[in-house]
Amino acid sequence: MRHTVSIALDDRSYSIEIGAGLMSDPATFAGLPQASVAVVVSNATVAPLYAQRLQHTLAARFKTVHLVTLPDGEQFKTWETLNTIFDALLQNNCDRKTVLFALGGGVVGDMTGFAAASYMRGVPFVQVPTTLLAQVDSSVGGKTGINHPLGKNMVGAFYQPQLVVCDLDTLQTLPAREISAGLAEIIKYGPIADMAFFEWLESHVHALRSGDAKALAYAVQRSCEIKAWVVGQDEREAGLRAILNFGHTFGHAIEAGLGYGKWLHGEAVGCGMVMAAHLSHALGLVDSAFVERLTRLISAAGLPIQAPVLDGKDNAGKYLELMQVDKKAHAGEIRFILIDGPGKACIRAADASVVRQVIARCCSA
Amino acid sequence: MRHTVSIALDDRSYSIEIGAGLMSDPATFAGLPQASVAVVVSNATVAPLYAQRLQHTLAARFKTVHLVTLPDGEQFKTWETLNTIFDALLQNNCDRKTVLFALGGGVVGDMTGFAAASYMRGVPFVQVPTTLLAQVDSSVGGKTGINHPLGKNMVGAFYQPQLVVCDLDTLQTLPAREISAGLAEIIKYGPIADMAFFEWLESHVHALRSGDAKALAYAVQRSCEIKAWVVGQDEREAGLRAILNFGHTFGHAIEAGLGYGKWLHGEAVGCGMVMAAHLSHALGLVDSAFVERLTRLISAAGLPIQAPVLDGKDNAGKYLELMQVDKKAHAGEIRFILIDGPGKACIRAADASVVRQVIARCCSA
Repeated sequence: MRHTVSIALDDRSYSIEIGAGLMSDPATFAGLPQASVAVVVSNATVAPLYAQRLQHTLAARFKTVHLVTLPDGEQFKTWETLNTIFDALLQNNCDRKTVLFALGGGVVGDMTGFAAASYMRGVPFVQVPTTLLAQVDSSVGGKTGINHPLGKNMVGAFYQPQLVVCDLDTLQTLPAREISAGLAEIIKYGPIADMAFFEWLESHVHALRSGDAKALAYAVQRSCEIKAWVVGQDEREAGLRAILNFGHTFGHAIEAGLGYGKWLHGEAVGCGMVMAAHLSHALGLVDSAFVERLTRLISAAGLPIQAPVLDGKDNAGKYLELMQVDKKAHAGEIRFILIDGPGKACIRAADASVVRQVIARCCSA
Repeated sequence: MRHTVSIALDDRSYSIEIGAGLMSDPATFAGLPQASVAVVVSNATVAPLYAQRLQHTLAARFKTVHLVTLPDGEQFKTWETLNTIFDALLQNNCDRKTVLFALGGGVVGDMTGFAAASYMRGVPFVQVPTTLLAQVDSSVGGKTGINHPLGKNMVGAFYQPQLVVCDLDTLQTLPAREISAGLAEIIKYGPIADMAFFEWLESHVHALRSGDAKALAYAVQRSCEIKAWVVGQDEREAGLRAILNFGHTFGHAIEAGLGYGKWLHGEAVGCGMVMAAHLSHALGLVDSAFVERLTRLISAAGLPIQAPVLDGKDNAGKYLELMQVDKKAHAGEIRFILIDGPGKACIRAADASVVRQVIARCCSA
């Protein structure tokens, strides 16, 4: 069983292939541009599990298949690590036709994508996401980049892959904590776009957490469909696309404030959605029953719903300061993705005093 | 007197404004997108001469105008220097609407352009080239990037500016050596596209070297027209655009072999054109009279025509090794831009033995 979701972006269109065993099937890669060299970029955790499988399949199509193994973790999403990819590409005389394959989670995908965008001003690349979070979110839509000490994903490019391959087999080896982190980005699609999907998630959250293949297949497919629909309308986040960042403004502050890698990105987004829901309620956009319902699902997904204290003296001030460098901010004004009634997102500024109250509330049990 | 050359690239189209005093005229910047913050990026040589003038003009339009001053020189075209731009942008809370201005030569333009392409995945930028070379070549067409220890411009992006402002006044403070370096990229347009322009250059090379304003204005305008015509057909160098690299394959080897910054880029390109002309002749594409004529003009422009020895033991081998990492290479095969009869360029591979002979000849007086 294989599902295809298409992303329509004129000459940058591509498909997301979803199914079990795709990585072992040469047909998966049949449509790629001709080239003699492929480079698989992975990390120290994922490479031992899947690199050989992917390299073997690619060997049928590429004369040479190199492997570059990065250290594992958000704290390595830096220029230094990115540069090790460039080193390997140059040392192996890789040219403009070389195809890069990002084999791993969001960090590997973001860095490999940015390396592909920048190496010789652009070479083709393929996303082969091996985490639930990457399959439903980060590998789709062409956002690539690295972190800067002063902000997450501050340096990067919009650069679309040639293909996204979601091999569902990889989810079977995923730790429970990573499944939960992926569920955060899946749950996100409900409040912003599709409450029927939200309901489905409410009744399948336990199946998803226990690795039910059929449930996971549907969750990945529906998430990719919604993301493809949004990205197809607004590739470079001039407007609509920002709704995909529901929970991310608070979430990025949590990640930056605790130090990248302490909480998983999905955990920070899960908690961030609770905070954004409270803010939506404080601004009169949703009722408290919706906030409770969303909080319940996030908790059932195994995600934190209590926000961490980032600064003992001025905790809310610290949150506000960290959120001001968010990429959605305009002239220092933080722009929040809020829920304007279940199933519909909006983008709004909010008074600092209201935001402070929400932070105080979410940080106490 | 102001000339406008248009670059037609769909929604990435922009104009090149050429004239004296443009930097002091608020009308020059009237068409830019609305924003509250502008950041002028310059270097330690150019900033004291022109930064205040540009900042003053921009202050009429932007609430805040920051200045970032980089060290001057090709050897600083590195990630470390690029990162100082990101540091300044983040420390000043610059958002996605912030407009960057590249005030300087090719190195400042390439780095500022890449910073603009990558900061928050893309902010608008304006090229304000202050060298002849940057006005006629590097500021036009959207090639941005930095060097890697293993190759020049290996990391970068195709990213178009909103506007290019060639203020001819800046050429009056330019050292003679830099005027000559700029003439290399101007001369280039003759053999590849326009022999009438080549003839004009033959009779105006002394006027150009002595800073004749009218001659410089025409040389900049005609160069930009030819470049705009080429880039408009092939923005991302899938084919035709590569002809703009005439002289650059050998030239990059010279720069990398001697160490970046030893020869100016234009000097390496001037000498590289002599070498490429010899190779064209060795392959039977042009007669020796053409090689001599081109060599004469390059020499008259004050540029080196004898190639440097890069390796005492295997000089030709060193050249070949350095040229193999050229971005035009495919699967290790070097692709040369050659002259296929005066006024017409072609892209071809060549036998290593022939290339070795040409290198040997060009490196001995």
